[in-house]
Amino acid sequence: MVKLIALYRKPEDTEEFERHYFGVHMPLVAKIPGLIKSEVSRLTGFPGQESKFFLMAEMYYESTDKMNEAMASPEGKAAGRDLMSFAKDYVVMMTGEIVE
Amino acid sequence: MVKLIALYRKPEDTEEFERHYFGVHMPLVAKIPGLIKSEVSRLTGFPGQESKFFLMAEMYYESTDKMNEAMASPEGKAAGRDLMSFAKDYVVMMTGEIVE
Repeated sequence: MVKLIALYRKPEDTEEFERHYFGVHMPLVAKIPGLIKSEVSRLTGFPGQESKFFLMAEMYYESTDKMNEAMASPEGKAAGRDLMSFAKDYVVMMTGEIVE
Repeated sequence: MVKLIALYRKPEDTEEFERHYFGVHMPLVAKIPGLIKSEVSRLTGFPGQESKFFLMAEMYYESTDKMNEAMASPEGKAAGRDLMSFAKDYVVMMTGEIVE
């Protein structure tokens, strides 16, 4: 299994950001074909310090091929366009291959 | 549910690092009381670029209290000491509260 990971730095207006993120972006992500599950977490530094990142989303796919297909689908492209519209300056994207 | 997240920057000797990580460190982590599950992923930048981080571990606990108890246990302390012995310069720790 693989996952697409989005780490978000803290935006200036977290309230507006979260409204768009949970109200618009995640519903678009949920429509992407091949998505097995997703997990969104609010982040804090450990131990108890401020974290560079404030939100992390992990979106699971069966394989790298399935993930690439998903990103190239109309739904994947729509979610990608939306991401760039509100989070371009805050997001760091990575992929993870689950090994253990 | 909450999770302790460890993001690892790429060490100079990845082979030696992984030998210790998978052979010594994760077995110590597995002994920590209250750990519900853990997930380790190899990271790549998206799309296809090099990532600042090369490994991520996520360790799930029922609550922040349970996680703090786990970290304060002898097994938690042993895993923490081991982490500092081989990964002090590479690891960034965060906690995540799962919201969705």
